[in-house]
Amino acid sequence: MHSIHHTVAIELGARSYPIEIADALITQGRTRDLAFPAGTAAMVVSNTLVQPLYAQALAQRLHPHYGRVHTVTLPDGEAHKDWQTLNLIFEALLTHGCDRKTVLFALGGGVVGDMTGFAAACYMRGVPFVQVPTTLLAQVDSSVGGKTAINHRLGKNMIGAFYQPRLVVCDLSTLDTLPERELSAGLAEVIKYGPIADMAFFDWLEAHMDALRARDKVALAHVVRRCCEIKAEVVAQDERESGLRAILNFGHTFGHAIETGMGYGAWLHGEGVAAGMVMAGELSLRLGLVDGRFVQRLRALLARAGLPTQAPVLDARDNAARYLQLMRVDKKAEAGEIRFVLIDGPGRALVRPAPDALVREVIDACCAG
Amino acid sequence: MHSIHHTVAIELGARSYPIEIADALITQGRTRDLAFPAGTAAMVVSNTLVQPLYAQALAQRLHPHYGRVHTVTLPDGEAHKDWQTLNLIFEALLTHGCDRKTVLFALGGGVVGDMTGFAAACYMRGVPFVQVPTTLLAQVDSSVGGKTAINHRLGKNMIGAFYQPRLVVCDLSTLDTLPERELSAGLAEVIKYGPIADMAFFDWLEAHMDALRARDKVALAHVVRRCCEIKAEVVAQDERESGLRAILNFGHTFGHAIETGMGYGAWLHGEGVAAGMVMAGELSLRLGLVDGRFVQRLRALLARAGLPTQAPVLDARDNAARYLQLMRVDKKAEAGEIRFVLIDGPGRALVRPAPDALVREVIDACCAG
Repeated sequence: MHSIHHTVAIELGARSYPIEIADALITQGRTRDLAFPAGTAAMVVSNTLVQPLYAQALAQRLHPHYGRVHTVTLPDGEAHKDWQTLNLIFEALLTHGCDRKTVLFALGGGVVGDMTGFAAACYMRGVPFVQVPTTLLAQVDSSVGGKTAINHRLGKNMIGAFYQPRLVVCDLSTLDTLPERELSAGLAEVIKYGPIADMAFFDWLEAHMDALRARDKVALAHVVRRCCEIKAEVVAQDERESGLRAILNFGHTFGHAIETGMGYGAWLHGEGVAAGMVMAGELSLRLGLVDGRFVQRLRALLARAGLPTQAPVLDARDNAARYLQLMRVDKKAEAGEIRFVLIDGPGRALVRPAPDALVREVIDACCAG
Repeated sequence: MHSIHHTVAIELGARSYPIEIADALITQGRTRDLAFPAGTAAMVVSNTLVQPLYAQALAQRLHPHYGRVHTVTLPDGEAHKDWQTLNLIFEALLTHGCDRKTVLFALGGGVVGDMTGFAAACYMRGVPFVQVPTTLLAQVDSSVGGKTAINHRLGKNMIGAFYQPRLVVCDLSTLDTLPERELSAGLAEVIKYGPIADMAFFDWLEAHMDALRARDKVALAHVVRRCCEIKAEVVAQDERESGLRAILNFGHTFGHAIETGMGYGAWLHGEGVAAGMVMAGELSLRLGLVDGRFVQRLRALLARAGLPTQAPVLDARDNAARYLQLMRVDKKAEAGEIRFVLIDGPGRALVRPAPDALVREVIDACCAG
């Protein structure tokens, strides 16, 4: 097993960093594979689920590198990705007298990564941080791109910063403890890379979906590496999300509406994205950009990954209106016009608005309630 | 009067911007002197004191340039420079459906500028902003450097970002409505530039202090321009505050301790800095870096500016211990070691630690209670 070790180099000039992908990196990885950034102290941020599993092992690992190693444990879940929880990190840093040379370690899923990254961006106007993602979703999605944020009650990920980690440590053995539903949610972000960028990878996923759900390490290592590579190519061309990068949000415009409409935490992010990709696929179909066979393949692979392919009804009176209302506050919207990520033929995405009537048709066709 | 118009160009590569300094810029400035950044909407952020004076005039000025102009009014004062107040800006932006191309205008003093800048840095991970400082302190200090922040109950300016405005509009006529005490507080930051960088400017201030306190526009224009120039030279060499830039914090290490120890708002920032500069001067004297005559000149000019030259007692039992405790959480501290900005001969500053015993001596000598 220890022979699986991929490194993906993220090239961003002065902010370049490596992603290390291997089994048992936290407990047994060679120190030279983990060049931790220098610092006076380390602060390990995790949540109530992850802390008992890996925090002690990581802290032990860090002790030889930092004068002091502190930990702070956040409540689990998207519902807590708010200012109040972020402030727990600031309180811990200030209470321990942590200075500007403190390094923050995000040990957990996407929520922990987003909050720790944003805390690192803001604490004393910026301290270094390391991502140690322990979910498949975080390993494929939060490792690249430097997006950090918290939610606001009026919109998801509305308050945040672009801030790059110094190192990402993807320990595949942490996926062994991941609940089935979380593994599936991660696979939604994995499948996404097929339609928007690489249909050969989509073919590979169709052939290896059973191995992935059985948590085969070689298959998982390939998936994490390939997703990070594709995302890195896209982000390198558009670090600040002014154009191309928006294609990474395939499924997310509908998906965010589902997440917000159902209340944070009711649907997992990946579940919202899965149903959202079907909706964006249907919209692409109705705009004549793809054929029905493509949408059917997408739906089938999502179902095999254990993901929902039908969206929920958010409002029994006027469901489409509720979706449209929620989508108009999306960060990609401009002057109230929703910009959708659509598939312009398998393996190629574009961003454009669509007629409300067509969007309503898609919502009516895709929602079950 | 309208013939006074200085432009200071801040050169920061892709983030360069101009500072326009003139009389009556908000109401009568020529549009070609104010190249507002493009955007779908403008959000004017001010406070309860400034809003009735200038918000309507600025909004009228912006209407031809932006589709929509919104305003939000914050409570006044350093005591409100916190998350709760910051959230009023986010609530206003989200309630009005403001997108990524919204431009924020900070109309007010340093507190409004710091909060609006930080809100701009975080809203949707970054939107453009313009500084319209209406206090002398903000015109000389917040115009350059890109420092934005809010306070935490455990420390001042602990949560923030480095984020540059697109334009700074210093309208000297707004200083006509500034209370006497605020004008003096601004002069503390002005006087600061003498000892750390330019003793010729210090000579000029000694000669023009009466004109400045009488709000002579030509003298004020010179002061704003010269301070922005000096600060720009320092910041250009060290945008992220890793070294040289720390000299701008002359008087601030002691000053922040005073502000925090007295409770935010009891002492104005400039008042804390004034007493803090005397303390840092006394420390420089005791370290043999300057002579007693220099410290006496500094003290005399601060007094003529209407500023306190004696520091308050923060703790009747062990005052020095309280000062030291508060200074150890300063952002410049490293591993608990306080780093002081000292005067290494008039016109030249350095940053270094100092023996606790000497610092206690200075505190005992400078505090009155």
